[in-house]
Amino acid sequence: MPPKLLTHLLLALVAVSGAAGGANSIVGGATIEANTIYGAIRGLETFSQLCVFNYDTKNVEVRYAPWYIQDEPRFAFRGLMLDTSRHYLPVDVIKQVIDSMSFSKLNVLHWHIIDEQSFPLEIPSYPNLWKGSYSKSERYTVEDARYIVSYAKKRGIHVMAEIDVPGHAESWGNGYPKLWPSVSCTEPLDVSSNFTFEVITGILSDMRRIFPFGLFHLGGDEVYTGCWNLTPHVKQWLDERNMTTKDAYKYFVLKAQEIAIDLNWIPVNWEETFNSFGGSLNPRTVVHNWLGPGVCPKVVAKGLRCIMSNQGVWYLDHLDVPWEEVYTAEPLAGINDSAQQKLVLGGEVCMWGETADTSDVQQTIWPRAAAAAERMWSQLEAISAQDLETTVLARLHYFRCLLNHRGIAAAPVTNFYARRPPIGPGSCFVQ
Amino acid sequence: MPPKLLTHLLLALVAVSGAAGGANSIVGGATIEANTIYGAIRGLETFSQLCVFNYDTKNVEVRYAPWYIQDEPRFAFRGLMLDTSRHYLPVDVIKQVIDSMSFSKLNVLHWHIIDEQSFPLEIPSYPNLWKGSYSKSERYTVEDARYIVSYAKKRGIHVMAEIDVPGHAESWGNGYPKLWPSVSCTEPLDVSSNFTFEVITGILSDMRRIFPFGLFHLGGDEVYTGCWNLTPHVKQWLDERNMTTKDAYKYFVLKAQEIAIDLNWIPVNWEETFNSFGGSLNPRTVVHNWLGPGVCPKVVAKGLRCIMSNQGVWYLDHLDVPWEEVYTAEPLAGINDSAQQKLVLGGEVCMWGETADTSDVQQTIWPRAAAAAERMWSQLEAISAQDLETTVLARLHYFRCLLNHRGIAAAPVTNFYARRPPIGPGSCFVQ
Repeated sequence: MPPKLLTHLLLALVAVSGAAGGANSIVGGATIEANTIYGAIRGLETFSQLCVFNYDTKNVEVRYAPWYIQDEPRFAFRGLMLDTSRHYLPVDVIKQVIDSMSFSKLNVLHWHIIDEQSFPLEIPSYPNLWKGSYSKSERYTVEDARYIVSYAKKRGIHVMAEIDVPGHAESWGNGYPKLWPSVSCTEPLDVSSNFTFEVITGILSDMRRIFPFGLFHLGGDEVYTGCWNLTPHVKQWLDERNMTTKDAYKYFVLKAQEIAIDLNWIPVNWEETFNSFGGSLNPRTVVHNWLGPGVCPKVVAKGLRCIMSNQGVWYLDHLDVPWEEVYTAEPLAGINDSAQQKLVLGGEVCMWGETADTSDVQQTIWPRAAAAAERMWSQLEAISAQDLETTVLARLHYFRCLLNHRGIAAAPVTNFYARRPPIGPGSCFVQ
Repeated sequence: MPPKLLTHLLLALVAVSGAAGGANSIVGGATIEANTIYGAIRGLETFSQLCVFNYDTKNVEVRYAPWYIQDEPRFAFRGLMLDTSRHYLPVDVIKQVIDSMSFSKLNVLHWHIIDEQSFPLEIPSYPNLWKGSYSKSERYTVEDARYIVSYAKKRGIHVMAEIDVPGHAESWGNGYPKLWPSVSCTEPLDVSSNFTFEVITGILSDMRRIFPFGLFHLGGDEVYTGCWNLTPHVKQWLDERNMTTKDAYKYFVLKAQEIAIDLNWIPVNWEETFNSFGGSLNPRTVVHNWLGPGVCPKVVAKGLRCIMSNQGVWYLDHLDVPWEEVYTAEPLAGINDSAQQKLVLGGEVCMWGETADTSDVQQTIWPRAAAAAERMWSQLEAISAQDLETTVLARLHYFRCLLNHRGIAAAPVTNFYARRPPIGPGSCFVQ
């Protein structure tokens, strides 16, 4: 079972009003009751968003009091993925992203740490791995990673780390070229070599001491095995076992799953693993959808769990997806059986880093991630089903301005392409 | 005389090297000597930029020690203008900009607070003025403004405030419609009305209690007086005095100068005032160039002081200006007489806000502002005169990555248009 994520929140506000009571008075009081510390954090966030600074009286006020709010998240897993391989994101920038996630009650930072292009993380067992970083300073020490986990935890956010194998791992070979099948076949990792799995075991053992969250992402997407067949020693290894490259792909993924499970992790894999050999995956596997709609219904019908990130709606680097489509995406679409619905842990917006670095990562994440966050937090009956212009739009404008007010570089809501600059002067609330 | 801005900095570093001395040792020491507290701040900034975290030893090191650095700024006035009328910039965002300015040793935040579109600042004497803000929350209280001044001062940055009169002031009339000549002539402010100057006196008196810096910007640019002639009571006022609208423009600017001077401020005016009636400006006036090159030579030849912001090179909202042109801009161009050179206080990069808000203001400022900052800080003989690719480029990449590392959303250096996202994966140091 995954760790208990669900929180229950009860927020009761009785007649809080600064205006009536003079400059510094508190009239009435607020009580937050929660079953978990995470619920209390969410309650404080809700409370802070009810507070409005009155520029005339210079009081902080809660308007329209009394409030009585009973609240809990619809989905336990409300994720945001950050890719720190295509561009290195400094620790201070990841902190800013974590801050902003907590404002919209997202609770899982899926840290896609490593990819083909760079290996920024320190791995004590294999200290040459981070030679695959872009430069000596575009790196995370073990202490940096621990600090990020701790910083996130204090804001109610779990860090789900990823190593993406066997594809998307070319950068590993900069430190240990033996991980490459050959100099002309640098991806996927060498399936035929025990050393490959020794390194994975070392990496995961080291990472287990950093990442206490119960889920660990093992990637498994976009595995193009063609050059395995062209590499003599790998080809020989396949032939001796009467395996196709597709068999070897399965072999690799299942072996990585075993290593993670032995370390008491629940494995998460991108959907290609399910699409290719779903029946062989460990029954504890969480399948991470990304290619399109209709995957989670198949996953939960097989009894596996699912996270939805359909790229057509929840990939934030797809700049042409308008916020309305982000908002209307439904993780439970096509799943009517309530037992199967429970197998959908939630969803995740993905911030791939090819064209997002420190300069523009926040303006690419926000405000659209907030549309997904509302979908994942609010009960279905509270989510606007139609006429989004008159129901959701003002709320999204308000939240964008709240982010700006808190120093987060959220982009205008109404630009056709995400993260575009405002087209002219104006108020934050209408742009 | 303007306040003493020049600082003298002496930085001596003798044999500081962490690597040689073990994990936590300090070998050698560093001494900073400075004539002023500002010099000490700059010295600490230089020292911090010499410090490099060694990811292998996990020491902070100063490489290539010993260092002996004797340094002082070339220009006393090294400015950045922020426009908070076209878009409101929250206090937290202004703080981030101030932080980033201090990293490149810029020392004057020219706060273009108010313009046609909005009046965000609280003015106790005329409390309806900030009714001209975009919304009730897109405002600065007196306390906010004082806090910004204090925050900047601690980082060695002066805040030069501006009210731009008589043009660029339409928003004033939202609170006090009598400031408009008529409902169909809402700009420039009504030159014929005593109330206009009463309000300016009230504003400046209130602002004097917030802004201790010796310079105050009175605007004076882009004054289109056409509708004064079409407004009967203004036309009558002009006729009674046998004044043209151009005379009235001069009358207005000089009267505003008097009010500022009476409050012990040195007036700064945009160059149109000099171009139109330079001989009439108060001799203490600092003329602020923006339209193009060749203005400061004329200004200093007349004995007035000058700040250079030639829009072709130092207007940051001109996204098509490459960093090389920002770098090669020379405030003393065309001024050979050393006495006249001393009348150029320095320069200023201008971040106009039409398409820059919280989402993109930092990526529009940086890294190009750093190119101007080096020009304004470094002695002329230390500034690269040619072959910028092999001399300046690596330094600018490094500084951009330093900003990123400190959480500042500086854009890639090598994009053709400023503030564009990176075009693909890669290291900060080559993008």
